Amino acid sequence: MRGAVLHAPGDVRFEERTDPTIINPTDAVIRTVATCVCGSDLWDYRGINPVGQPTPFGHEYVGIVEEVGDEVTTVQAGQFVVGSFFASDNTCPNCRNGYQTNCLHREFVGAEGCQAERIRIPLADGTLVATPEVPDDTYVPSLLACSDVMGTGWYAAVAAEVRPGDTVAVVGDGAVGLCAVVAAEELGAERIIAMSRHESRQKLALEFGATDIVAERGEEGIARIKELTGGIGADRVLECVGNAESMRQALHSTRPGGNVGFVGVPHGVSLDGEELFYSHVGVRGGPAPVREFLPDLIDRVLSGRINPGEVFDLQLPLSAVAEGYKAMDERRAIKALLKP
Amino acid sequence: MRGAVLHAPGDVRFEERTDPTIINPTDAVIRTVATCVCGSDLWDYRGINPVGQPTPFGHEYVGIVEEVGDEVTTVQAGQFVVGSFFASDNTCPNCRNGYQTNCLHREFVGAEGCQAERIRIPLADGTLVATPEVPDDTYVPSLLACSDVMGTGWYAAVAAEVRPGDTVAVVGDGAVGLCAVVAAEELGAERIIAMSRHESRQKLALEFGATDIVAERGEEGIARIKELTGGIGADRVLECVGNAESMRQALHSTRPGGNVGFVGVPHGVSLDGEELFYSHVGVRGGPAPVREFLPDLIDRVLSGRINPGEVFDLQLPLSAVAEGYKAMDERRAIKALLKP
Repeated sequence: MRGAVLHAPGDVRFEERTDPTIINPTDAVIRTVATCVCGSDLWDYRGINPVGQPTPFGHEYVGIVEEVGDEVTTVQAGQFVVGSFFASDNTCPNCRNGYQTNCLHREFVGAEGCQAERIRIPLADGTLVATPEVPDDTYVPSLLACSDVMGTGWYAAVAAEVRPGDTVAVVGDGAVGLCAVVAAEELGAERIIAMSRHESRQKLALEFGATDIVAERGEEGIARIKELTGGIGADRVLECVGNAESMRQALHSTRPGGNVGFVGVPHGVSLDGEELFYSHVGVRGGPAPVREFLPDLIDRVLSGRINPGEVFDLQLPLSAVAEGYKAMDERRAIKALLKP
Repeated sequence: MRGAVLHAPGDVRFEERTDPTIINPTDAVIRTVATCVCGSDLWDYRGINPVGQPTPFGHEYVGIVEEVGDEVTTVQAGQFVVGSFFASDNTCPNCRNGYQTNCLHREFVGAEGCQAERIRIPLADGTLVATPEVPDDTYVPSLLACSDVMGTGWYAAVAAEVRPGDTVAVVGDGAVGLCAVVAAEELGAERIIAMSRHESRQKLALEFGATDIVAERGEEGIARIKELTGGIGADRVLECVGNAESMRQALHSTRPGGNVGFVGVPHGVSLDGEELFYSHVGVRGGPAPVREFLPDLIDRVLSGRINPGEVFDLQLPLSAVAEGYKAMDERRAIKALLKP
């Protein structure tokens, strides 16, 4: 089979790779229906995270089960499945607490590269969720979004404890930030302030339920959020970028007693204890426990309540994966969907 | 009147000071019934916070109202009152959200020194809570505890979102840590692990509802908490010290998805973004909005449900305030109560 391999910063190749097989009796092998390029992969693509050796790439996927190991009981060959980027047993104490991305037996599904024609999924029972039937193609982008960006935007809102009536600000207008707008809307936020300077992303944010757009950043962005919130800040702020500036923006845009949910993988972020203390702001982040939310998110997609697949503004054949990275790196695309 | 003044590290004097008077129509002046020495004052006493000039000292108090300004409507002369160390209007948006210590018009009551025979209380309506009648002397220590340490321990538990059935660990065995045990117990924690190496404090923690004592610290302390919690950490950890070591202890003793409530005023504490991210731990701290909890805490004291006044293991005349500081500095006393 063929799949994407990162050879060096900026050098993604679509090349022949070994076919995945069942290694453990808890594995499944799926035939990829769709995969995509994640903003977090750009850290590697840009060489900010060092790339030591040719590395299979990608960690988002939906597919059709081809084969399952002897111990797999909840999914079977022929089913359409959505899964998380972290494999989890879904039975350990951390999983039972709803934090499957901290499963005591977690494995990174992306380690073998999901931008490929076939993928081995470890711990299939605890990782994959099958749809009731093989869905129509029109649902594929939104179901694929659930495997990471929609699950991550959802977690941002859950981690920030978004409640009905809240005013929510979203920092970051990438796919995750836009999905965080969807999540805030679904969880009952009354006012959703999307921070974005890009017209196409502003438009999608408004379509997803944003009520206000703030184009300013830094001190001006903070002042603008305060202006929109009676001087005190937003009830909940969803940080969907992961650098020091975006975290500062988030913390300073939150009202005393409010919450920041942070899902941008942090690079160079540090929180000053004294500042956090006197702000009274609550903070929770982490890799989203997508598996926890999948059944609910799949329902919302299939019932037509949400349509997060709209974040894919570029669709390419999997063989053109390199162009997908390039387009996202240059911010020509919000998110690129790849079809084998 | 006379009151305590800090002249230099280690040099607290009980001396003649100007009598407080009504300055603003929202002020009250109270005659102090009891006041005390706070662990947080030791930062100044020890010279870790610089002391620039002779400074009136102390910020905890209960008293009898002597006089109120023209605009004060909820308390009147002759009433016994408990108040917070931060004056608040209790009507601004932050107060309405339950964060009176971030009141838009807050004033630090301790600025004029509460270890004194009389105290001016700004914003009396939003700061003081009167008891239904002047209470019996036996309730005074517990009511005094509510003005800071019990309110702060309560906030630690609220900030950490303690829920019925939880396993809670408390870092710090000072008066606040011990009151945090009381709070965890009242909020329904099933298991309460008190971290303490001092026999008298361990004993009081057990009396307050602790189910386990951990004497180890650092890596050993973390390992011990993990051992007691099925390997994953406590659901909620209440950080009641405020230094880098205690915060590390707290963060590493919390399970993924759990919470740290931090109420120790931080000195040299910084949280690494990446570490916090992958831990999935939620964090909230701050100066406790005591005013929010006072009506409930006063009820719990007067109904005999809680008896946080037991943290006072030393009682002195106010004139011996210097000895109170010395005893707490040398850890001979958990907390010193002072009576004019």
